Amino acid sequence: MRAAVMYGARDVRVEDRPDPKIVQPTDAVVRVVTSCVCGSDLWPYAAMPATDTGRPMGHEFLGVVEETGADVTALKSGDLVVAPFTYSDNTCDYCAKGLHISCRNGGRYGFDGVDGGQGEAVRVPYADGTLVKLPVAADSALLPSLLALSDVMTTGHHGAVTAGIGRGDTVLVVGDGAVGLCAVIAAHRLGAERIVLAGRHSARTDLGRRFGATEVVAERGEEGVARIRELTGGVDKVIEAVGTRPALDTALGAVLDGGTISRLGVPQYEQGPIGPAEFMRNITLTGGAGPARAYIGQLLPDVLDGTIAPGHVFDQEFALDRTPDAYRAMADRQVLKALIRP
Amino acid sequence: MRAAVMYGARDVRVEDRPDPKIVQPTDAVVRVVTSCVCGSDLWPYAAMPATDTGRPMGHEFLGVVEETGADVTALKSGDLVVAPFTYSDNTCDYCAKGLHISCRNGGRYGFDGVDGGQGEAVRVPYADGTLVKLPVAADSALLPSLLALSDVMTTGHHGAVTAGIGRGDTVLVVGDGAVGLCAVIAAHRLGAERIVLAGRHSARTDLGRRFGATEVVAERGEEGVARIRELTGGVDKVIEAVGTRPALDTALGAVLDGGTISRLGVPQYEQGPIGPAEFMRNITLTGGAGPARAYIGQLLPDVLDGTIAPGHVFDQEFALDRTPDAYRAMADRQVLKALIRP
Repeated sequence: MRAAVMYGARDVRVEDRPDPKIVQPTDAVVRVVTSCVCGSDLWPYAAMPATDTGRPMGHEFLGVVEETGADVTALKSGDLVVAPFTYSDNTCDYCAKGLHISCRNGGRYGFDGVDGGQGEAVRVPYADGTLVKLPVAADSALLPSLLALSDVMTTGHHGAVTAGIGRGDTVLVVGDGAVGLCAVIAAHRLGAERIVLAGRHSARTDLGRRFGATEVVAERGEEGVARIRELTGGVDKVIEAVGTRPALDTALGAVLDGGTISRLGVPQYEQGPIGPAEFMRNITLTGGAGPARAYIGQLLPDVLDGTIAPGHVFDQEFALDRTPDAYRAMADRQVLKALIRP
Repeated sequence: MRAAVMYGARDVRVEDRPDPKIVQPTDAVVRVVTSCVCGSDLWPYAAMPATDTGRPMGHEFLGVVEETGADVTALKSGDLVVAPFTYSDNTCDYCAKGLHISCRNGGRYGFDGVDGGQGEAVRVPYADGTLVKLPVAADSALLPSLLALSDVMTTGHHGAVTAGIGRGDTVLVVGDGAVGLCAVIAAHRLGAERIVLAGRHSARTDLGRRFGATEVVAERGEEGVARIRELTGGVDKVIEAVGTRPALDTALGAVLDGGTISRLGVPQYEQGPIGPAEFMRNITLTGGAGPARAYIGQLLPDVLDGTIAPGHVFDQEFALDRTPDAYRAMADRQVLKALIRP
């Protein structure tokens, strides 16, 4: 099969790889219908040291079950399924708590002999515990929004849930990437009344307004904080959907004492400000990598009936062989989120 | 009047100070019946640079109202009152949310011309918004437990509340100081089933057991984490009542993915580990300086009817003139918490 492999910074190649086969009885092989490039793929794309072996890329995909192992009972060949961005057994203590991201038997696509999603097919471990069957046809117009459940939409929802967003809230979302925009959808869906979106790419913040943002702040740094405070007087709940220190500083500057910052962007720092000042202010830091598998079932009805349409974050489609162009376009910020079709 | 003033590290003096008088119409002057030394007083006692002017000490006290300003309506001369460890107007937006520690007009005893609590009398700003009237006589045997509402007991309660402790929980409390021990009381009071207390001073951990701790871990560092994990398999909720990096590391090592660490000890660090590892684990960091004023009313009935008796943390009494000895004894860990009587 053809699949995308990263060999180092700005070095993504589409090449022939062995066709996936069932290895464990809990495996399924999924023929990919559509996948995409994640904002988090851009971190290794910017900085991964060169390697001879390469790393299969992609962790968001949707496809048709082609083959199942002997122990797979909930799925059968021909089922259309969406894959959360990590696999999980759905039976361990963490999965039982809804924290599938920490599954005792879980793991990441592209590691440990598991294929990446940016390819023609994927062997999915713990298929019953991982994949969610979709009640639509493989040519449904809803496919982009269903694919968004793999990661960006469920991640945005994780931010809204962990920030404790409810009816009437004023919320700040820092970052106008696909996760930030999906966090706007999620905050709106949970009843937030005012949603301030901090971002400076007008095409993206315009989409954010369609998703429910009531105000946009394009200024950054101290100026951005001042503007947010001027608009809102400070906010109780912040979703930080970037992962950089400046984004965290914006969140800390805008949040009121006693407020909550939920982080969705993978931190690009090891240490951060949790000293006496933040302590005296009673700031809660929460969020993290979202348990997509736990949320897909909750959000699916709203995608199916059109209440939410996170698929709008995909603003350009690429054939699989053009995946390197998709990375380049996203890294250069010409494309918000690239959808890939094998 | 006589009052304790700190002039530098290990330099506390009891000296003559001007008698407090009403300055603002919202002030009250309180004649101190009993006060105490706080664990947090030991940080400046260890490290405060020498100063000529000195800093009046003490922020926990209980006393009799002697005089009130023209605008004070809820209190009158002769009332026995307990003071939360900061003053607050009880009317601003933060106070309305129960976050009196962040009061827009609030402040700290011993700063900005306000007396400290370790003295014969205190001018209390925003007396109506700060002081809580106590329905007992000034010679009540409950006085130590009522004094504990000033800080340690309400702070411990803040940890239990922000950690989200409820019925049946397994909780780790890191630190066997007065706040850690009161956090044990608070966790027990909110229904925790297992309370593991990490501390190595057996007199203190024995008191912790009386307060509700079900297990004690005396080991520290990695050994301590291993022991806690062996006992519990990891915990969902941790109250960190020390404030040092090793204490935070113990909390991080013992907490399960998706768990919550509530910090009650003022951090003795500016930056801490909130990088990709903690992010992937979905650790929530919460807590902070507790809004004592918000909690006194909730806890008071339980002190009055003997359900909780946090006053047991006071293991030695000192006359006011012996306050320097009280500091020394606490710093040298001969005394857990010193009660002072003018």
